Amino acid sequence: MIPHLTTALTGPLQDLEKRILDSSAEIEHFFRGQWLEHTPPLYCSVDLRNSGFKLAPVDTNLFPGGFNNLNPVFLPLCVQAVMTAIERTCPEARNLLVVPENHTRNTFYLQNLSCLATLMRQAGLNVRIGTLMPAVTRPTEIAVPDAQPLVLEPLQRSGRRLGLADFDPCMILLNNDLSAGVPEILKGLEEQYVLPPLHAGWATRRKSNHFAAYEEIAREFAALLKIDPWLINPYFGVCGEVDFRAHAGEECLAANAEALIAQIRLKYLEYGIKDAPYVVVKADAGTYGMGIMAVKDAAEVRSLNRRQRNKMAVVKEGLEVTEVIVQEGVHTCERINEAVAEPVVYMIDRYVVGGFYRVHTARASDEVLNAPGMHFVPLAFADCCTTPDHYAQPGAAPNRFYSYGVVARLALLAASIELERTAPGE
Amino acid sequence: MIPHLTTALTGPLQDLEKRILDSSAEIEHFFRGQWLEHTPPLYCSVDLRNSGFKLAPVDTNLFPGGFNNLNPVFLPLCVQAVMTAIERTCPEARNLLVVPENHTRNTFYLQNLSCLATLMRQAGLNVRIGTLMPAVTRPTEIAVPDAQPLVLEPLQRSGRRLGLADFDPCMILLNNDLSAGVPEILKGLEEQYVLPPLHAGWATRRKSNHFAAYEEIAREFAALLKIDPWLINPYFGVCGEVDFRAHAGEECLAANAEALIAQIRLKYLEYGIKDAPYVVVKADAGTYGMGIMAVKDAAEVRSLNRRQRNKMAVVKEGLEVTEVIVQEGVHTCERINEAVAEPVVYMIDRYVVGGFYRVHTARASDEVLNAPGMHFVPLAFADCCTTPDHYAQPGAAPNRFYSYGVVARLALLAASIELERTAPGE
Repeated sequence: MIPHLTTALTGPLQDLEKRILDSSAEIEHFFRGQWLEHTPPLYCSVDLRNSGFKLAPVDTNLFPGGFNNLNPVFLPLCVQAVMTAIERTCPEARNLLVVPENHTRNTFYLQNLSCLATLMRQAGLNVRIGTLMPAVTRPTEIAVPDAQPLVLEPLQRSGRRLGLADFDPCMILLNNDLSAGVPEILKGLEEQYVLPPLHAGWATRRKSNHFAAYEEIAREFAALLKIDPWLINPYFGVCGEVDFRAHAGEECLAANAEALIAQIRLKYLEYGIKDAPYVVVKADAGTYGMGIMAVKDAAEVRSLNRRQRNKMAVVKEGLEVTEVIVQEGVHTCERINEAVAEPVVYMIDRYVVGGFYRVHTARASDEVLNAPGMHFVPLAFADCCTTPDHYAQPGAAPNRFYSYGVVARLALLAASIELERTAPGE
Repeated sequence: MIPHLTTALTGPLQDLEKRILDSSAEIEHFFRGQWLEHTPPLYCSVDLRNSGFKLAPVDTNLFPGGFNNLNPVFLPLCVQAVMTAIERTCPEARNLLVVPENHTRNTFYLQNLSCLATLMRQAGLNVRIGTLMPAVTRPTEIAVPDAQPLVLEPLQRSGRRLGLADFDPCMILLNNDLSAGVPEILKGLEEQYVLPPLHAGWATRRKSNHFAAYEEIAREFAALLKIDPWLINPYFGVCGEVDFRAHAGEECLAANAEALIAQIRLKYLEYGIKDAPYVVVKADAGTYGMGIMAVKDAAEVRSLNRRQRNKMAVVKEGLEVTEVIVQEGVHTCERINEAVAEPVVYMIDRYVVGGFYRVHTARASDEVLNAPGMHFVPLAFADCCTTPDHYAQPGAAPNRFYSYGVVARLALLAASIELERTAPGE
């Protein structure tokens, strides 16, 4: 099943998928060249929005938590990609320690963790799970729906190494986005491979660094395909000193929103798009769609009520929001029956390994689909993203999925460059 | 669907799959180490025989011709593996020239060729097909059942490069096993990547070199798993100067057959196996199961009638047989309903990407399933070979397939070492 596009694809608007399909050899050559120069993060998921005329990433997650939502048929792709990643990073590895989020009551997250541990095991590693939760003081079994129970164990630091009782790992896989900061126990582990690196966590990561790198990549890629970079790149701006509760930084936000909406309006005129432009205001650090709002008029930013201010002021783990990104909103014109669908693409190493749609019946095309209290239904991609059919139409399922995979890999490449640039000095 | 084993798995006999499953982390670590030292051929298929107590390769093909028999669900694994192989071998590649067999009337082979071309294209290469057939003097379209037509083009040599009109490839993929010798047009192409290398063709390759390398690998692997190497390794011997028509070399064959049958009998006694030992006599160079016979008594080799001698004397392309390998026969105890089934595992680069069973209703467990005139039914593996289930029984489908993949990769490793050793000097 593939959602249909509500946008009529005519004239220049139907060009993007066709251009991607026709250029697949050029595109793969481009990526091969890039991966010789840049090292991808171990894993990554990218939220895309597809408006029919525009296909762009809106969020890039370096600690993906939805492996359980992927089509099980394609999990072998994950295993194979993990094998490649281990061989390149740490071929001598035998033991892998997974450090997960502390959401032990979220059964979806536990299913993700179970899936992740299984595929690491299938790739040939001894896998155990060490938790940051202080309440876990001895190995604790946790039931997981439709899976074997997981055993969480207390982390043990000994000198410059992290492990468990009787378990000394070569690699430490973080599936915790470090929103609460980098715990002491994870610092200074120079002898072990920590993947993704600590600076990929939200304690230091900024969306604006990511989208700045993405903009450069998008320009280069667009030049290669001879397309307008805007078709794959959302405009954005940043405000560095915002305090929602104290009304500080509002002018910066409003000015950015106004400028972006004007820019988008020009593009909509150029392409004959009738939709209303909008922007998304969100914390520059953080995840889970907390501290996020969609705005069609800059004035809305100035007239937030107390409840809205409080909602925007903090994200996960109570992290205070002071840096804010204002990003072009991309209408989601993909629908399953009447429900809005947003694709999420999963990658391991430099390979697209699957994805799913967030399907939400109660949201409109210009709303944020990954927000607190949102209960989306995951719909696994029916196809993988690496088997374009050059004899079929651009909009055919394998080609739609291929396009997702291409744009998601551009975001992956941006993440690689972002991580290089933000790496702490030696 | 997975064939059931007619052998009762009890006592030491059920140990092999369990040992492989329990050692998966050690096994993957072993392979990672090996691939740092040895380069796998681009692709490879391995015929296995599973007698329940023994799981061993009996033939390793470096020009596999059955990609069309794989489960289409797992073709993305092929695409991903090809991407890895290209990135490692020739990242700058854009154009790939495929040089196929000359079997243009064999629709199964054409479907294989179509499948191969498609997955190379999906991995991001411009693919065209250049034929060695002198009759093809201009681009010629050939219909392929259930697929797009293929275009065969005449090869063009210009200096030290091979290509087509207006097509200068970086890589040349051979899907022709060179049974008829190495054509002049393929010699001296130092500027282009020719994969697999010319010396992988049957003009120079010998099964005995392969199985000598396999024996070493099997010993090392068996030591790691603390198992008897015989459980994964078929005994073999070689006769270098045989002329079936002139009755020359018969004594060598009979002596080898006798010695092997005695060795196998000892092993059968050790493990309490009731089956009758047998050996397979086949050309040391060549494929397609021509020049091949199963023998239970050394006397049979001495009493061949004229028809049998003629059959053994030549293989594909009329190649005269003078070197002969005598190999331990491994009973196939896998059955689908009443039909005998033999697994064939496919690999690209160092990855297992799928496989199928040759299912044959009219053959017995000690007969050769890949022989002239044989019409097997291919049954694609339902699972890939890389997702062992550590919570399931050793004989469960994912674990059976994992075992296949492990033994097939040992043969792949042997092929890598064989090709290193037989490479022509600089």
